[in-house]
This record gives sequence, C-alpha cells and structure tokens, in this order.
Amino acid sequence: MSFSLRLPVRFAHVDAAGIVFYPRYFEMLNAAVEDWFAARTGIGFAELHLERGLGVPTVKIDSQFVAPSRLGDMLTITITVERLGESSCALRYAIECNGEDRVRASAVLVCMNLDTGKSTPWPAAIRDRLAATDMIAIQSVA
Amino acid sequence: MSFSLRLPVRFAHVDAAGIVFYPRYFEMLNAAVEDWFAARTGIGFAELHLERGLGVPTVKIDSQFVAPSRLGDMLTITITVERLGESSCALRYAIECNGEDRVRASAVLVCMNLDTGKSTPWPAAIRDRLAATDMIAIQSVA
Amino acid sequence: MSFSLRLPVRFAHVDAAGIVFYPRYFEMLNAAVEDWFAARTGIGFAELHLERGLGVPTVKIDSQFVAPSRLGDMLTITITVERLGESSCALRYAIECNGEDRVRASAVLVCMNLDTGKSTPWPAAIRDRLAATDMIAIQSVA
Amino acid sequence: MSFSLRLPVRFAHVDAAGIVFYPRYFEMLNAAVEDWFAARTGIGFAELHLERGLGVPTVKIDSQFVAPSRLGDMLTITITVERLGESSCALRYAIECNGEDRVRASAVLVCMNLDTGKSTPWPAAIRDRLAATDMIAIQSVA
Repeated sequence: MSFSLRLPVRFAHVDAAGIVFYPRYFEMLNAAVEDWFAARTGIGFAELHLERGLGVPTVKIDSQFVAPSRLGDMLTITITVERLGESSCALRYAIECNGEDRVRASAVLVCMNLDTGKSTPWPAAIRDRLAATDMIAIQSVA
Repeated sequence: MSFSLRLPVRFAHVDAAGIVFYPRYFEMLNAAVEDWFAARTGIGFAELHLERGLGVPTVKIDSQFVAPSRLGDMLTITITVERLGESSCALRYAIECNGEDRVRASAVLVCMNLDTGKSTPWPAAIRDRLAATDMIAIQSVA
Repeated sequence: MSFSLRLPVRFAHVDAAGIVFYPRYFEMLNAAVEDWFAARTGIGFAELHLERGLGVPTVKIDSQFVAPSRLGDMLTITITVERLGESSCALRYAIECNGEDRVRASAVLVCMNLDTGKSTPWPAAIRDRLAATDMIAIQSVA
Repeated sequence: MSFSLRLPVRFAHVDAAGIVFYPRYFEMLNAAVEDWFAARTGIGFAELHLERGLGVPTVKIDSQFVAPSRLGDMLTITITVERLGESSCALRYAIECNGEDRVRASAVLVCMNLDTGKSTPWPAAIRDRLAATDMIAIQSVA
C-alpha cells in the first residue's frame, strides 16, 4: 500500500511570497523516498550507495502544484508504487495538508550501478520487498 | 526565440554519487526563469514581487533527466515560450552540456496576485514583452 | 536547560565526498531554532513572522566542524540559551551523533521588527518564556 | 591579493522576510571558494575531488551578518588568504553590495585526503599557487 511521511513546512522551504518554493518540494519527496525505501527493503540509502554501490536516481517526474503550502503547515507525503519493472519503479506522490491537495506527482526511479552509471536489474531481495504491497507504514520521524 | 543561461555544476549541486541531485536542477531552472523574465520584460523579480505585488509560481512541471551532470560541467539552460495565455505561460526548458541533453522539461507558470493568492491576467506591458518572439538573448552571468 | 532535535543525515545534505556539506548544517540548526522557539514560547515561526511582524535573524554565528557526518547518521542538535538580552539572545549549538561531537557553534539572534527592519525589544511574554530555564524538552519530530 | 565573485541574490536565496536566509550565504561563499581555488591553482573541484582524491573542507567559520541582503541585490564576494599552513588555509570573506557591508567571515579550510578522511599537507604545486599573492582576479561568471 502507500507509505507516508509527515514534515513541517520550515523557514528554509518558503520564498519571499511566504509559500513553499517549488524546488523544496522535491527535497521533501526525496526525503520520503529515502524513508520509504528503508522501511520497505530494510536498506538505508547509506548502505545502498556506499556498501552496495547502487543508486535509485529519478529519471522522470511530472508534478502539479495544486495549492500553495505555507510556513508552519504540517504536510503528509504519501508514496504509492504504481509499477515495478525489471530495473525501474514508477511511484505516485501526493503531498497533502489536512486532507487538502498540495502536490501531485508521478515519477520513475531506476536502479543504477554507481560504478558503470548504467541501470541494472533490481537485486531480487530488494525487488521482492518493493513488490510486497500488503504493508502499511506510517512514519512520522523526519 | 529562446533564452539561455550558462551555469556551472557546483559542489552544492551534487550528491554522494557525484551527480547533480535532481532538486537542484529546479533551482537552476528558477534562476534561468528569473533572468529570462527580467531580460524579456525589463522587470526583475524584486520589482515584480515587492513593488508590483505579483508572482509567477510554477503550477505544473514535467521533467525528464536524460543523462547525469557532474561536478564542473558547464550547463546551458534554454527557455522557450510555448504558449502565452491570459494569465499563464507555458515554457519549455532544456539543460545541455556541450550539446548533450541532460534535462528536458515543460512547465506552466501563472501570473499571481500576491495579495489574493489567485491568478490574474498578465499586465498588458508584461504580456506584450513576453509575446515578443523576435529576440534572442544569450546571457552568461549567473 | 537545553532543547534537542533529532534529524537524520539525508541524501540532500551530503556532498560528493559523502559527508554533510557544511551549509546544510545551518539549515539543520535553523530547523532546531524553529522548534526550540515554538516549544519555549508557544509561538511558531508562522505566527511570529506573519501575524506578529517579528523575525529572529541570526546576526552572528561562530562554528567549528569537529568531525564529518555521513549519510544515514542520526544527529542530535542541542540548543542552550547562553544569555538573553533586551532584544537579543545568545545561543550555543551542539550537533552530535551517538555522543560524538560533530559541530559546535555559538550564535546571536536578534528580535527584529519586520516592518522597520530594525531590532526591537523582545515582547515581555516571549522574553519571559525564553528566560525560563527549568524546562527540558526532547523533541524527535523533524 | 583578493579574489572576487559577483552573484545576484536570487529567489532561491531569500526567506519569508524577503531577505537572504543565512545558510544560503554559505552556499555563495562555497561557490566563491570553488572559483577562487580554480583561478589560483588551475585545478577545479571536479579534478581535485574525483581525480586527485583531495577535498578542502571548511573546519571553522566565524560569521557576522552585518546588514540584510534583498532579492535582486548584486553581491560581491571577496576572498583573501590570511595564512597558509602546512595542510590548512585561513581565508577572510567579505560580502558587499555597492560597497555596503553585508557579511564578514573568516574560515579555516584543510586539505583532506578523501580516502583516509584525514588532513594531509598541500601538494607543493597547489601550495605554491595559493601562496602567490601578486595576482588579482575579478571574475563575474557565477
């Protein structure tokens, strides 16, 4: 199922208009992806990158900024796996505040061999864990 | 025509894998939008936001990260106006390095009244300037 | 007493050498200041800035980066009030990982009237709360 | 002598109060250090880190934010070498806008072996170039 992370809109996120500067949303999404990946696979990004020599770069992301978010808003970022390929993964992201839509996005991540810089099939153990859809995890530590 | 800004890939842009962390590309695109807007309309973002009470938030952006960029790469960011609406503007972005595709994106920006937080028609003078397509500007100051 | 916030070292924080890029530490410190201020005074930064027209800019910060922090490290940021002035506040920051020193810093923040851009005495209610040193708060939500 | 880099205050740099969020100044200083180092030694950060396995982390920085900078301000960042040690370098930074002081800082950088994570003496060629004080370079490309 889906995975959620709650994050406050901080001073560092907002612009002169007092609303979240949109590049900051992608930093938040990446934080959620880190936690989702670790929760699903048991492998943190440190182990993945530094010990296993793998990365999961985003190769495509389509985003809609539905409504502005303001300083102090508590955001809920939800990640849903849409499709799991041989060496890729399609994710759907939703950022909400009290049930109100803020951002909708869909992304494709690939499993990359950091040595070659090329995509590589998911290790079986990782793929199996990402494919498990019967889990619901709500995490609130940023 | 199109507008270009050249920016180096800096230490602040890259991640542990030595490649540009994708949220940083959106900061670069925003820098290019600032310079494009000022070059086209003669109005900087400071004047736009602080004196005129207008903003141009991005409401939609679809992005493809075609190939990774590395520390020290000199990137060229090109902005092309695709369509100019009553209160919106569709832009196409390309980020290249020595003619090699790195990022392709298309975005919609709206003219927003910062007091109401709602979209508002472009002021005629701004719209006329954005509509002028016979200009080519190459800027290399970041 | 002191106030603490726990934050993980995320992908967004590290550089090509795999360690925290030092400007990111200041974003973490600012996050801790936001939470400290809200915990101490009951006033979030949104209310402070947007409703009360006050800010608390950092006017001075001296920092030592004692040891590098790496992706996945769980950091504890501790804030201690050193001195509370008429319109300023001296804070001591410590960032640690499992009891190991990472960053030591001391800063001066001032209470600023956002309209005039000048320092202004702390409102009595805020000053009284900041002066209360008998509280210990451990917060772990980022 | 000193080295200067000119950078505009961009939308990405300012906070809800419309002034530069202080962690962004450190990103600007780091950009200036990159350009200073490349101009002085002929070695870019990419070559330094990726080919030579060396880094120049900041181990200490003391900063004063003398006056706020606003969206659209054109800043001049000046770097002066204060002292060159066996494996370290003390730098003085000044950020000004039209001759008006904005930030004053002094920092110590060390030459670090990225494999061992420990400081190492400057390679002679680099040290000699950093020691050459008869150069004045004004660079305006960000």
